[in-house]
Amino acid sequence: MKNNLSQRAIVRLTQYHTILRDYSKKKIENITSSQISKLLEIDETLVRKDIKNINCKGKCKVGYSVFELKYIIESVLDCNITKKAYIIGAGNLGIALAKYSKFNDFGLEISALFDIDKHKIGQKVDNKPIYDLNTIKKHIQSTNINIAILTTPNKVAQEVTNFLVESGIKYIWNFAPTILTVPEGIHVWHENLIGSFLQFCTIENIS
Amino acid sequence: MKNNLSQRAIVRLTQYHTILRDYSKKKIENITSSQISKLLEIDETLVRKDIKNINCKGKCKVGYSVFELKYIIESVLDCNITKKAYIIGAGNLGIALAKYSKFNDFGLEISALFDIDKHKIGQKVDNKPIYDLNTIKKHIQSTNINIAILTTPNKVAQEVTNFLVESGIKYIWNFAPTILTVPEGIHVWHENLIGSFLQFCTIENIS
Repeated sequence: MKNNLSQRAIVRLTQYHTILRDYSKKKIENITSSQISKLLEIDETLVRKDIKNINCKGKCKVGYSVFELKYIIESVLDCNITKKAYIIGAGNLGIALAKYSKFNDFGLEISALFDIDKHKIGQKVDNKPIYDLNTIKKHIQSTNINIAILTTPNKVAQEVTNFLVESGIKYIWNFAPTILTVPEGIHVWHENLIGSFLQFCTIENIS
Repeated sequence: MKNNLSQRAIVRLTQYHTILRDYSKKKIENITSSQISKLLEIDETLVRKDIKNINCKGKCKVGYSVFELKYIIESVLDCNITKKAYIIGAGNLGIALAKYSKFNDFGLEISALFDIDKHKIGQKVDNKPIYDLNTIKKHIQSTNINIAILTTPNKVAQEVTNFLVESGIKYIWNFAPTILTVPEGIHVWHENLIGSFLQFCTIENIS
């Protein structure tokens, strides 16, 4: 199902989910496409189309059931299938991501962090251990985890990537602002925070 | 010019720029669409189209001039127009963003951080001062900065947002995983890290 959705639709569904989680916590039972549209500053027709595409039906004048829409989005986005990952680099960004509550909602589970700093190794972040990066191969072999979230400084990102690939990592979500070179069969997703900001600037005409 | 580009094209241009910066540092003079396409795992035709759209011309068998293409992307994306912003919350994420080198390349300048923690107030992050959040109105009045990057914990995000709006902030780039309610005329861009990860999962078929 997820594969039939556009990338942008997937992003929007995660945003609807954030609203639904907030509504659910506040024990609000129904939500309308107009409410979602206003909160996210996006077109209401688009919201309706997205929700129709995932086969969720609303009721006239009442809207959608918060519980049902949340449940359907979670199913469509495979949130119930846990994807385990390691964070590489226990600096400020690595720690922030290890604590990021929304990952768990969508089935992304951070199993451990890795660093080379002896003062950090052995400590925990939100109950997740920080291990010595040099031992990662052993961990990968025993857990089969093959996703790494890379948050190292820019200047060592490529070197660390080579080491991760040698150690068995297959997928790298890269937060270092540099483009990584990897062998065939290894996949990198370059996170692009500045790209996101520039989209904001364009939409809102900030200059 | 920037306003004629699609949001996705803007994101891709920032990624090409990252490659061009790396090439430029390595003193490589030319780059081909095929090289860009391979590094980013995106279609070469799309790369060519993007570059044609911003009126950069390549040479047969040589490719594009790294200097020229980098310069054109910077002009198109208004990188030379500095956009000053405050970071709200000097936790791990706030500090990581304050140190994020790529912001400067694209004209985003972090002027200061704000927090309520007395142990943090008065300290500096990469030469950027951490001020008392309660004094932000005074700072906004003297600097005219109206962009805030919100990195507070989820549970206080709305309360802090209300305070920022009262103090004169007009644009909020929100990293807290919650949807904020703001009055008419105030603009929020909800950063969506999990949406980005789920796009990666879909493209690479991670499940």
